[in-house]
Amino acid sequence: MPTLAEISALIGCSAPGGEAVAITGMATLAEAGPQELSFVGSDAYLPELASTRAAAVIVQKRVKLPATWTRPALVVDDADLAVAKVLKLFTPPVPRPPAGVDAAARVAGSAALGAQSAVGPFVFVGERARIGARTVLHPGVYIGDDTVVGDDCELFPNVVVRERITLGNRVVIHAGSVIGSDGFGYRWDGRQHAKIPHIGTVVIEDDVEIGSCVCVDRAKFSATRIGRGTKIDNLVQVGHNVTIGPHCVIVGQTGLAGSAHLGTGVVLGGQTAVRDHITLGDGAMAAACSGVAEDVAPKAVVSGTPALPHRQSLREQAALRRLPDLVTQVRKLQEEVEALKKK
Amino acid sequence: MPTLAEISALIGCSAPGGEAVAITGMATLAEAGPQELSFVGSDAYLPELASTRAAAVIVQKRVKLPATWTRPALVVDDADLAVAKVLKLFTPPVPRPPAGVDAAARVAGSAALGAQSAVGPFVFVGERARIGARTVLHPGVYIGDDTVVGDDCELFPNVVVRERITLGNRVVIHAGSVIGSDGFGYRWDGRQHAKIPHIGTVVIEDDVEIGSCVCVDRAKFSATRIGRGTKIDNLVQVGHNVTIGPHCVIVGQTGLAGSAHLGTGVVLGGQTAVRDHITLGDGAMAAACSGVAEDVAPKAVVSGTPALPHRQSLREQAALRRLPDLVTQVRKLQEEVEALKKK
Amino acid sequence: MPTLAEISALIGCSAPGGEAVAITGMATLAEAGPQELSFVGSDAYLPELASTRAAAVIVQKRVKLPATWTRPALVVDDADLAVAKVLKLFTPPVPRPPAGVDAAARVAGSAALGAQSAVGPFVFVGERARIGARTVLHPGVYIGDDTVVGDDCELFPNVVVRERITLGNRVVIHAGSVIGSDGFGYRWDGRQHAKIPHIGTVVIEDDVEIGSCVCVDRAKFSATRIGRGTKIDNLVQVGHNVTIGPHCVIVGQTGLAGSAHLGTGVVLGGQTAVRDHITLGDGAMAAACSGVAEDVAPKAVVSGTPALPHRQSLREQAALRRLPDLVTQVRKLQEEVEALKKK
Repeated sequence: MPTLAEISALIGCSAPGGEAVAITGMATLAEAGPQELSFVGSDAYLPELASTRAAAVIVQKRVKLPATWTRPALVVDDADLAVAKVLKLFTPPVPRPPAGVDAAARVAGSAALGAQSAVGPFVFVGERARIGARTVLHPGVYIGDDTVVGDDCELFPNVVVRERITLGNRVVIHAGSVIGSDGFGYRWDGRQHAKIPHIGTVVIEDDVEIGSCVCVDRAKFSATRIGRGTKIDNLVQVGHNVTIGPHCVIVGQTGLAGSAHLGTGVVLGGQTAVRDHITLGDGAMAAACSGVAEDVAPKAVVSGTPALPHRQSLREQAALRRLPDLVTQVRKLQEEVEALKKK
Repeated sequence: MPTLAEISALIGCSAPGGEAVAITGMATLAEAGPQELSFVGSDAYLPELASTRAAAVIVQKRVKLPATWTRPALVVDDADLAVAKVLKLFTPPVPRPPAGVDAAARVAGSAALGAQSAVGPFVFVGERARIGARTVLHPGVYIGDDTVVGDDCELFPNVVVRERITLGNRVVIHAGSVIGSDGFGYRWDGRQHAKIPHIGTVVIEDDVEIGSCVCVDRAKFSATRIGRGTKIDNLVQVGHNVTIGPHCVIVGQTGLAGSAHLGTGVVLGGQTAVRDHITLGDGAMAAACSGVAEDVAPKAVVSGTPALPHRQSLREQAALRRLPDLVTQVRKLQEEVEALKKK
Repeated sequence: MPTLAEISALIGCSAPGGEAVAITGMATLAEAGPQELSFVGSDAYLPELASTRAAAVIVQKRVKLPATWTRPALVVDDADLAVAKVLKLFTPPVPRPPAGVDAAARVAGSAALGAQSAVGPFVFVGERARIGARTVLHPGVYIGDDTVVGDDCELFPNVVVRERITLGNRVVIHAGSVIGSDGFGYRWDGRQHAKIPHIGTVVIEDDVEIGSCVCVDRAKFSATRIGRGTKIDNLVQVGHNVTIGPHCVIVGQTGLAGSAHLGTGVVLGGQTAVRDHITLGDGAMAAACSGVAEDVAPKAVVSGTPALPHRQSLREQAALRRLPDLVTQVRKLQEEVEALKKK
């Protein structure tokens, strides 16, 4: 267990007192015990400070602690960064199946498993699939024929990666997500919705992390692609032939319709919808709950449904707040103008 | 099979005639057969009444049955309550794996299983996990290391509960849901989105029911918490460090961003979004499709995106319906004022 | 491998030159190799045409190819239809478990399996379930007691179909979807939300296709019903007692609340919400992100939240774009009218 002195050094604080205390973890002010560290990121947390049992607190510099606080305080410029560093000290290892193939897994004879890869029970690995070195397939994962999973990947329980998909290195996919189902494409043939074949694939590049219950559909042809370092939250829909650049951040329950294109470093707030064939340029952002129906220029920020430039959207919202009064004002003006006309 | 007389007594009706008929179940007016009971909850259903084959109907008191209806009618004050009571008579048992551990399950030697608990095939239970008495784990369920599941819980097929999570007693989780994935938190380190460790847990209290394909993420530190008796519908996202009070009702496809806080008895309509760090007070309600971006006072009702007090939202919507005409009116006024000025 | 001549004949083009070239597949202009066919559906793709390595292109008639394009061009009236036909030539077979029951599946002794049906590893089939001829259950699928699956169905990995559900013939359900969980219904009994039993079922008719991570809840009584030929995209919520007519198209992340009713051929854009007990008539359409809170007439088109007739919605949106200016104009008019009154 690290001492408070060691933690102070880690986050660049001078000695706050109490350096010899062994710290067992981090917790909220309300829940921290006398050997735990807590966190004051803003003045909003000060009321809880009075009753905390925490051994010490990490404090954002601009927060002014009350004089009654006599325990150690680790004052930092960037409290979020400091917390991230401290959390790493206390991160318990993720339990994983041991290296090798579990007796209750089903791995095709033609599949190739990398060194130190771990295949848990009830995992299915199809013909000619290739699993990289040190990659972990948790219980219940399905890997289809001819799919390639890179090195140091981790697929959590019950993830499904269909056939002929490519995952890069260090890709993490959380439980229950589905990669490579058919895209949603039909043509009315006069009698029924005839299915359009989807012969393409999905390519997920290095260092991508995907949340739980996410769906990434395969392309009609060529590939649905998720660029390196992009992070995707839970319950997101990525349609067929979508291409997402590197280092994007896509928050939960967002939906990207077919052939949408995101550049580098695009950020989409939660529950955003992006229309098919729309492009968002590098560094573009859409606020939560946006409905993006037109192309967005690089670095532009949009919000609302349909999404508009954010400043315009704010102006419209402000005007909308005044609209009921405006209706009344106009009625009154009409009466006054009528009166003036009669004069 | 209960007779109509027994059902009448159960729901507090006087004898409607036909008491000796054995009733086999409930069905809609269109689908009911001559030994089934049906239901007229409002006048909207009266057109279907003429052709129903039902043996008898439960009728909400304010509905006026036509004189042509000569079969028994069970008239009640609260038709929904009456139906709920009758449905209980006909509820078939949920098929469950038998008590004990299926030969095709994988249960760690250090796990503890309560009396009469049932572990189905293809279930994984990790090291030191504890499963309560009479708890049922349906096929394909995953329980991570050190996770505690209380008594009388039921986890439907393919549910994933990751490591170090705590479930109370009588918790029900429907198929495909995922509890305890990492929260969605990264910091841009100048080169990539660096992952913030999530060392916290999820606590789900007694009598919580969670739908299918729901995602509840683990906390950065301390716990994401769902209070006792709260009910969550399908495809809901509960972000890291969210705290939900007791007896809340959260309808399908709603998303709660990180550290959102719901008090007691909060009700969120379907597809609602709640911004991170927002608080909804006890008894607050948000209409379906709301985007809650500011705190909501106890018992307040909000709607719209961004969510406003519901009355204000309705006034704005009404004014918005008149806005196209208002634009025309203002143009006409401008012309009239110009004309007056020239006089 | 088909030659270009064979492909030209298939899509009704006259000989474009280069007929003997063997084509190995289709790809985007950017990714196509010298033995692949590509596609120019609109002028927007012309800039990419200059650098493509494709052997030939399928071109929509109204697109004017530059004179510099000297390779074969297959000009067609309906490029989407032509592509669909060509893709069929190159569709690789879906890998499936072989006919019979895998040794690692668990099939109840009382279940009945049709001729040439295929049951993969880690599949569970309950008591008295009936699986049709040639139906494929991929690894990890769960079929509850008394459930009936028709002929020629395909259920992808980890699909859950609970007990007493009926699927027609040629039904396809993609990975991770859940059919037949309890509907979301409770009654406050003064102390807690008491669960309303859901004794009904789900009926999915012939030729329905359902995406990944879709939830279809069972009815309170009678059936939640999805009509023949209807297609449902990923992450859609279908509440209890919803009835969907034949040949509907429901795009991703849409939610249908309890007892909503869709007629024949209804189309719902992505992220649409439909309120409980609402009816959308035959051929009605709702644009993406609509919140449908009132009945929609047959063939009507609605958009927005709350959903309005689409033309009205567009007029309001146009007026809303002018609202901030309108506020200014009204203020100015007020001043002018004041000035006139003082004269």
